[in-house]
Amino acid sequence: MISTPVIWAVRSSVRCWRQRAVFKGALEVVSVSGRRRFSAPTRRGASDMEELLARVVVPLPSYETRDKSPPPPESISLEFMHYYRSLEKEDKIDILTKLSQDYSVDHKAVSELSVRLLDTQLRDMATILQVEDRLRYSLTPRYKQLLSHISRVEGGVKFLVDLRADVLEMVAPKASESPHIKELNSTLKSLLSEWFSVGLLRLERITWQSPCEILQKISQYEAVHPIRNWTDLKRRVGPYRRCYAFTHAAMPGEPLVVLHVALTEDISDNIQSIVREFATLDSEEDVNKINAAIFYSISSTQAGLQGVELGNYLIKRVVRELQSEFPHMAQFSSLSPIPGFSSWLQGLLSQYRKEGWGSDLLSEQEWKEVEQATDSAPGTPAVDSLRKLIVTSEWTRSERLSSVLEPVLMRLCAWYLYGEKRRGYALNPVANFHLQNGATMWRLNWRADTSPRGVANSCGIMVNYRYFLNETSKNSTIYLQNKVITASEQVLGFVSQFQKNSKL
Amino acid sequence: MISTPVIWAVRSSVRCWRQRAVFKGALEVVSVSGRRRFSAPTRRGASDMEELLARVVVPLPSYETRDKSPPPPESISLEFMHYYRSLEKEDKIDILTKLSQDYSVDHKAVSELSVRLLDTQLRDMATILQVEDRLRYSLTPRYKQLLSHISRVEGGVKFLVDLRADVLEMVAPKASESPHIKELNSTLKSLLSEWFSVGLLRLERITWQSPCEILQKISQYEAVHPIRNWTDLKRRVGPYRRCYAFTHAAMPGEPLVVLHVALTEDISDNIQSIVREFATLDSEEDVNKINAAIFYSISSTQAGLQGVELGNYLIKRVVRELQSEFPHMAQFSSLSPIPGFSSWLQGLLSQYRKEGWGSDLLSEQEWKEVEQATDSAPGTPAVDSLRKLIVTSEWTRSERLSSVLEPVLMRLCAWYLYGEKRRGYALNPVANFHLQNGATMWRLNWRADTSPRGVANSCGIMVNYRYFLNETSKNSTIYLQNKVITASEQVLGFVSQFQKNSKL
Amino acid sequence: MISTPVIWAVRSSVRCWRQRAVFKGALEVVSVSGRRRFSAPTRRGASDMEELLARVVVPLPSYETRDKSPPPPESISLEFMHYYRSLEKEDKIDILTKLSQDYSVDHKAVSELSVRLLDTQLRDMATILQVEDRLRYSLTPRYKQLLSHISRVEGGVKFLVDLRADVLEMVAPKASESPHIKELNSTLKSLLSEWFSVGLLRLERITWQSPCEILQKISQYEAVHPIRNWTDLKRRVGPYRRCYAFTHAAMPGEPLVVLHVALTEDISDNIQSIVREFATLDSEEDVNKINAAIFYSISSTQAGLQGVELGNYLIKRVVRELQSEFPHMAQFSSLSPIPGFSSWLQGLLSQYRKEGWGSDLLSEQEWKEVEQATDSAPGTPAVDSLRKLIVTSEWTRSERLSSVLEPVLMRLCAWYLYGEKRRGYALNPVANFHLQNGATMWRLNWRADTSPRGVANSCGIMVNYRYFLNETSKNSTIYLQNKVITASEQVLGFVSQFQKNSKL
Amino acid sequence: MISTPVIWAVRSSVRCWRQRAVFKGALEVVSVSGRRRFSAPTRRGASDMEELLARVVVPLPSYETRDKSPPPPESISLEFMHYYRSLEKEDKIDILTKLSQDYSVDHKAVSELSVRLLDTQLRDMATILQVEDRLRYSLTPRYKQLLSHISRVEGGVKFLVDLRADVLEMVAPKASESPHIKELNSTLKSLLSEWFSVGLLRLERITWQSPCEILQKISQYEAVHPIRNWTDLKRRVGPYRRCYAFTHAAMPGEPLVVLHVALTEDISDNIQSIVREFATLDSEEDVNKINAAIFYSISSTQAGLQGVELGNYLIKRVVRELQSEFPHMAQFSSLSPIPGFSSWLQGLLSQYRKEGWGSDLLSEQEWKEVEQATDSAPGTPAVDSLRKLIVTSEWTRSERLSSVLEPVLMRLCAWYLYGEKRRGYALNPVANFHLQNGATMWRLNWRADTSPRGVANSCGIMVNYRYFLNETSKNSTIYLQNKVITASEQVLGFVSQFQKNSKL
Repeated sequence: MISTPVIWAVRSSVRCWRQRAVFKGALEVVSVSGRRRFSAPTRRGASDMEELLARVVVPLPSYETRDKSPPPPESISLEFMHYYRSLEKEDKIDILTKLSQDYSVDHKAVSELSVRLLDTQLRDMATILQVEDRLRYSLTPRYKQLLSHISRVEGGVKFLVDLRADVLEMVAPKASESPHIKELNSTLKSLLSEWFSVGLLRLERITWQSPCEILQKISQYEAVHPIRNWTDLKRRVGPYRRCYAFTHAAMPGEPLVVLHVALTEDISDNIQSIVREFATLDSEEDVNKINAAIFYSISSTQAGLQGVELGNYLIKRVVRELQSEFPHMAQFSSLSPIPGFSSWLQGLLSQYRKEGWGSDLLSEQEWKEVEQATDSAPGTPAVDSLRKLIVTSEWTRSERLSSVLEPVLMRLCAWYLYGEKRRGYALNPVANFHLQNGATMWRLNWRADTSPRGVANSCGIMVNYRYFLNETSKNSTIYLQNKVITASEQVLGFVSQFQKNSKL
Repeated sequence: MISTPVIWAVRSSVRCWRQRAVFKGALEVVSVSGRRRFSAPTRRGASDMEELLARVVVPLPSYETRDKSPPPPESISLEFMHYYRSLEKEDKIDILTKLSQDYSVDHKAVSELSVRLLDTQLRDMATILQVEDRLRYSLTPRYKQLLSHISRVEGGVKFLVDLRADVLEMVAPKASESPHIKELNSTLKSLLSEWFSVGLLRLERITWQSPCEILQKISQYEAVHPIRNWTDLKRRVGPYRRCYAFTHAAMPGEPLVVLHVALTEDISDNIQSIVREFATLDSEEDVNKINAAIFYSISSTQAGLQGVELGNYLIKRVVRELQSEFPHMAQFSSLSPIPGFSSWLQGLLSQYRKEGWGSDLLSEQEWKEVEQATDSAPGTPAVDSLRKLIVTSEWTRSERLSSVLEPVLMRLCAWYLYGEKRRGYALNPVANFHLQNGATMWRLNWRADTSPRGVANSCGIMVNYRYFLNETSKNSTIYLQNKVITASEQVLGFVSQFQKNSKL
Repeated sequence: MISTPVIWAVRSSVRCWRQRAVFKGALEVVSVSGRRRFSAPTRRGASDMEELLARVVVPLPSYETRDKSPPPPESISLEFMHYYRSLEKEDKIDILTKLSQDYSVDHKAVSELSVRLLDTQLRDMATILQVEDRLRYSLTPRYKQLLSHISRVEGGVKFLVDLRADVLEMVAPKASESPHIKELNSTLKSLLSEWFSVGLLRLERITWQSPCEILQKISQYEAVHPIRNWTDLKRRVGPYRRCYAFTHAAMPGEPLVVLHVALTEDISDNIQSIVREFATLDSEEDVNKINAAIFYSISSTQAGLQGVELGNYLIKRVVRELQSEFPHMAQFSSLSPIPGFSSWLQGLLSQYRKEGWGSDLLSEQEWKEVEQATDSAPGTPAVDSLRKLIVTSEWTRSERLSSVLEPVLMRLCAWYLYGEKRRGYALNPVANFHLQNGATMWRLNWRADTSPRGVANSCGIMVNYRYFLNETSKNSTIYLQNKVITASEQVLGFVSQFQKNSKL
Repeated sequence: MISTPVIWAVRSSVRCWRQRAVFKGALEVVSVSGRRRFSAPTRRGASDMEELLARVVVPLPSYETRDKSPPPPESISLEFMHYYRSLEKEDKIDILTKLSQDYSVDHKAVSELSVRLLDTQLRDMATILQVEDRLRYSLTPRYKQLLSHISRVEGGVKFLVDLRADVLEMVAPKASESPHIKELNSTLKSLLSEWFSVGLLRLERITWQSPCEILQKISQYEAVHPIRNWTDLKRRVGPYRRCYAFTHAAMPGEPLVVLHVALTEDISDNIQSIVREFATLDSEEDVNKINAAIFYSISSTQAGLQGVELGNYLIKRVVRELQSEFPHMAQFSSLSPIPGFSSWLQGLLSQYRKEGWGSDLLSEQEWKEVEQATDSAPGTPAVDSLRKLIVTSEWTRSERLSSVLEPVLMRLCAWYLYGEKRRGYALNPVANFHLQNGATMWRLNWRADTSPRGVANSCGIMVNYRYFLNETSKNSTIYLQNKVITASEQVLGFVSQFQKNSKL
């Protein structure tokens, strides 16, 4: 499977069927979507499904009459939507499988046109173009029409977004097994890409004046730094903060991707100062204190829009918006989490231990200090002690351990971000997202997220991906085409320390 | 060329380059679009253009990296838009020709994949699907990417709509000559169809409270029954009237297709009672007097959206809207002009005269009455007299002539609407539009449009296309597939009278 | 002091300086008003104040030039507002006292004009009217001008509303002592009455789509049945519920009086079924199940608007609104709390005990049953047992006690509502409010509010004040003018039982 | 009668009953108000009226119960409104006369309280204040209650505004005759002043996006420089222009006072360059070319709000608005018409002629030049020639005459504006308005309004009243209190030339 740029918040939410980002804290979760409720669903028979599909997936019109065919009545689309929604998970898998296999491309027609195209090579351009056009038309999966008709019905676009979320779950684990489901996925993605083209999106600034419905969703969708209560929420849309979302005409009141920005004096190195400090809640913004825009949270809300570029465009639009509001603002940077760093590190330590050669990770001196600071039972291998410290986050309670580990964790983390790859691109999805956008891996920040979650995920480290506006385009290209990561001296310094130690 | 359903108002405006529906009457035309103004344009050199195209039309990424390529900077799209807008008509034709020819499909790649597809026939489905997907991708014209990128820029969608209007003008006269321009046209149409998919359109009711900007456009775009002044305009959005438009998120403030409805006691047989009667201007609507909804004007405003179904969907949405406002309303009908009837009739008479056998059109008795009523110079052939009467509209001044001609013109008109075809479908574009939507050709109305324009265009006759809601779907299908027109007894009666007379 | 109609929720909040309705439950209180925060305030000197007042309270122009005097610069109003806001409570009392005494009416001028008026009695009407007009003008307190000018400044009207809240607190305890403060109060009330005249108010329906800012305030202001969390709040503006508020142009985003309505099949006899039942949260309203509108909470939010009729008008407007939405709805009723019943009852029992003659309240049989059911220590007087039961709410835990007490508490409660008076009007402020509006005291409901608060306040009893629309005007008049309460047979039945027992 | 500040546009429209500013030019007048249409009205009998008034004007409650009286049912207010609207002019005069006389103040009660007040002089302050309060209450005309109740009904405030317009017409010609009508007028004015207090007004910027309804009204109400058509209207709300209005919550969609502003490089000296030049219609504003804000038209739209300060406040609010949009803008000035100058001049010349001593107005040299330039019949007195020139505007056609007359007319005009007074204030109403606001009479402009209307009204001269923001307050005070006009050297120079010539 080709790795497409994803935002971390979405990737994780795609993993499990019907999981909703659990909304922690004092605010109760209000289930907004009726779709998830089934009143005692029963499994459907295969013939039942086949009969339905035969009825709702009308044949493609012939090439000649393709502009002349009136759309089928809306009732057909509605029937399919209603039926599908009433299904249990297993039945959904069945019907999507059937749909993608039985109503796919007419391979015979494609072959015939291919033959014809090869014949016509010698003839005039008009004929070539026409046969190509017929060939193009013949490559349309028959079910594509159904999808198009559904998109025209009220609520249809949202239905297809959710349908694709289901398809993505099927695709994820068993990529190689069902080429038809993959084709369905890519047909859906291509349709959604047209409908969610940036020209059709609306940038909305979310404030305390926005409808409660949308603010509640903003609150629910915030997976990066959970929002605990009204005050918390009010803070994130209050002074020295901006919250922007893309919405779409076909899904009113539904933020598609949400970007939270803090307006600060300097590029922030700590998230608690952004999400937990309320001194400024009722104050007026002082423009003179605003020199930097910190993107501290970006969340895609629609699993079904995976691979449809939105976050990238949102950041760019917001930069433009901020520049027009603050003409002299020159610093744009994320303050990003590093999900996966701790697990990666634990895995590394386990493996090192198993394979007996973990000593490279730390210098001798460092190992010694870890041992001294931990008071482990004598004989415990230092790797084990270290691993336990990471798992339990216990090291944070000791000032001494903390200062021993700082250089170690910082250079390991730098390596994790910069050096660990997947098909040549950064393994860490947040890094991959910002690097694709053309950001620079700019600064690792120690004690940047001291929340239990922050410590557990990334030993409290956070990273700034900085957007130098006149370099993003170039950076993006060399990253995507040459897989080269642009990083600051600080980051490169840590990386080279790591390499020296680990003799890589 | 395939005849696509068009609304009459648009078709006529497509005819000439840069023509705007002239806004007659007391209101001055305000030129809204800065785009049409050139400050001393100069012709551009071919190398100039080629250099630009080479720069702005980036190569398609390889199939493997197609999801990995960052979009080019917006500046490229903006440069092209700016350049194109600054061109004179001839240069526009040049650049569109170059673009469509030099940045079309890579025919070699298509051929190679066709060969591969035929080879792979023996192999597994996964491979077949993959090669088909590659083939599909290879069939993308290279310029399609540029169009997509433009759509993402502010004002980009509107630019492409206008660009297609230009392309349509080029296609119209010399359809067979440039297959590449046809391909560009069809690529554009398919993109626009996705973006203007009904799920993305917004129905707006236009009232006297709507922004002046939109009301002025409504006023300008009204080509069917021109709006003369504020009172006239206020009337059309006032009590017993409804005015609806589709707008689109990417073209805010721009009505795409406009439908004017009159709410009446019975199905109207006269347009002046709708557009000229002001008794009710300040009155309150009396729901008990509202039994019928008369669609008396529908105008598409964007020449570039020809072939993209909007009017059809607008009528259906409006019917739904009206049903929810007036649950007991049961009569839905158009009161439509018959553009082209007079010219068709004049052509017919000329031809008859030339070929010497026009006598069939009228009965002997009728010819006699015409002669008596006209007091033509002795010896003038009756056909000539009749033709002159039609051309000058003089017959309307004589009550006697008028009653002599009524049965004649009504049966000729019925024939023109019902019997005259173009590739099997109704020749008259308004008829074709409503029949495609599933309406019934319901009633011809004598003295229905007594304005000079109405008399000149269609001898004052208008026609109701009636929408029987539970039959439209069936009617539409049999019209589109079997070319069968559903008509009322009145219409069929006139048609058979015509046939009897003319011995057809 | 004259008792003016007040809504209970306000009355209680007026009692203490700067108290905000504490917002209980899971939602944190967000302090909206910066006004309440002082950064280390210091007491101000008297001369300081006098100097300020001398500067900001400009002399009244002479009668002749009253239309010719330009308003003083805004800065003067702003200075006063700023100064006042910075004061501590004691200083506020000081400055209001000074203002009302030193810048009151010019008594000498009034006397002189009175003399002149008596002289002029013999002369013509024109002169009489003119002297009267001068007299009227001379009766204007000098500070009234300052108040008027403040109202013109942004935020000025809200400032005056809050100022009056301060004045009301001063007036409350020591009404007779400062006639000048009373005059200031009545001047303010009369100005506010003009500005908050119903023609200038805007009815807003609050929904889940309303701005979060306003919904949060709705949530905070709900003193009758506190809102605990988002789901709770969403419920109160969701299906089968309506929430309306009056807002005012000069105080945007600030609901002035809020009315919560439940749409039910029958007139509700239980509040939990309204505020705690969420079965219908996502359902569609079924119009056929909507026969009654229950006003289950009405809260004034501005202490400073006491005595300015808003609630009454809001109920009337909402009835109109509901009638236009549900033309066949015929039942309109409150479901109201009975604040003060328990305390009244406890007071009664104490007194009875002290005076030794409490036996009248219950029949012998009832006393016996209470004794049996309570298992009190032998020798404890039954009155004491009963009193303790009420204070602790313990009786609710015993089914037996509960059924013993039901008839007793119901008839006592009926008497409390119907028979207990203050200057001839119902003592209970909620009763007084609805009776003034013309409602009928319709039904007492046992176990209507089983929340701890409901049991503590009124032994769980609630009451419906029913609005028979064609009787409210008459009822209102006879209540206000003749102090006659309109009540249903049920209520009157309980009252007469009480009277029989207590031999009143 | 005391002269209150009026805006010229209103004053003229008040003069005749029900006259609407005729809307000249291409746009038809749309009659917006159904109120003006009577279906065959018939005169009403006096008893009819008396009976109605007796029913609708309820007695004032006693002082003690004044806060306890429920408002009468709305139906009473509606009945009066309906009745009044159905009356013919003469009947309106009758009913207003009756109302003001028969339901006025209770003079006996006032006398009694006056006596009591004089008695109580010796007693305590509390008693004094209370008797004063009773006296104040007794000075309320009984009809004031009716007016208050009407204001609470939908459309009631607008009704009272229009009612006052009627009252003003009655007052105007025969001020001394009916003191009661004057009292009604002043009661109404004082109520309206409270309701239209600036804190309750909303500033709206009118653009081409505003509702057509409001733009059409803007167009109709523009009496100073009539708007001819859509383009004209679009211009006035387009780039380099601003149009602001105050609206009021109780009269939605109704602009109360409208201010047109041009944004220019320098202070304009010519009105045609503002209202007739369309070069910039579609251009973008260039902030660098905006140095001055020219108030070129201000119109009050509600005759009934005469004397209620709105224009003054609107100018101040707009200045603030412009300063926040253009922080560096430093020049604020009107470009104002001089209505009445020509008539004044003609009157002057007539009188001079009659009295035989007109020679002072021009110098000998000037008289000679006039004579030479006019080629009058020999013997025609020069005064006559001059007067005829002015009346016919013929002098504008001769370059020579024009340059002869320039100095003459400029100094006469300066005198007219500066020296001609009414009760000590500037006779010219526009001058009086701006001087009250604190503007400086800054510059007379020759050939500033070359429209026929401009030449006829003021020989084409216009004047800038300039607002030096830090002097307006002072200027306003010395004008209103000391009747001193602040003027520039240019103006004072012309004035002294005039004085020298005319030996005043």
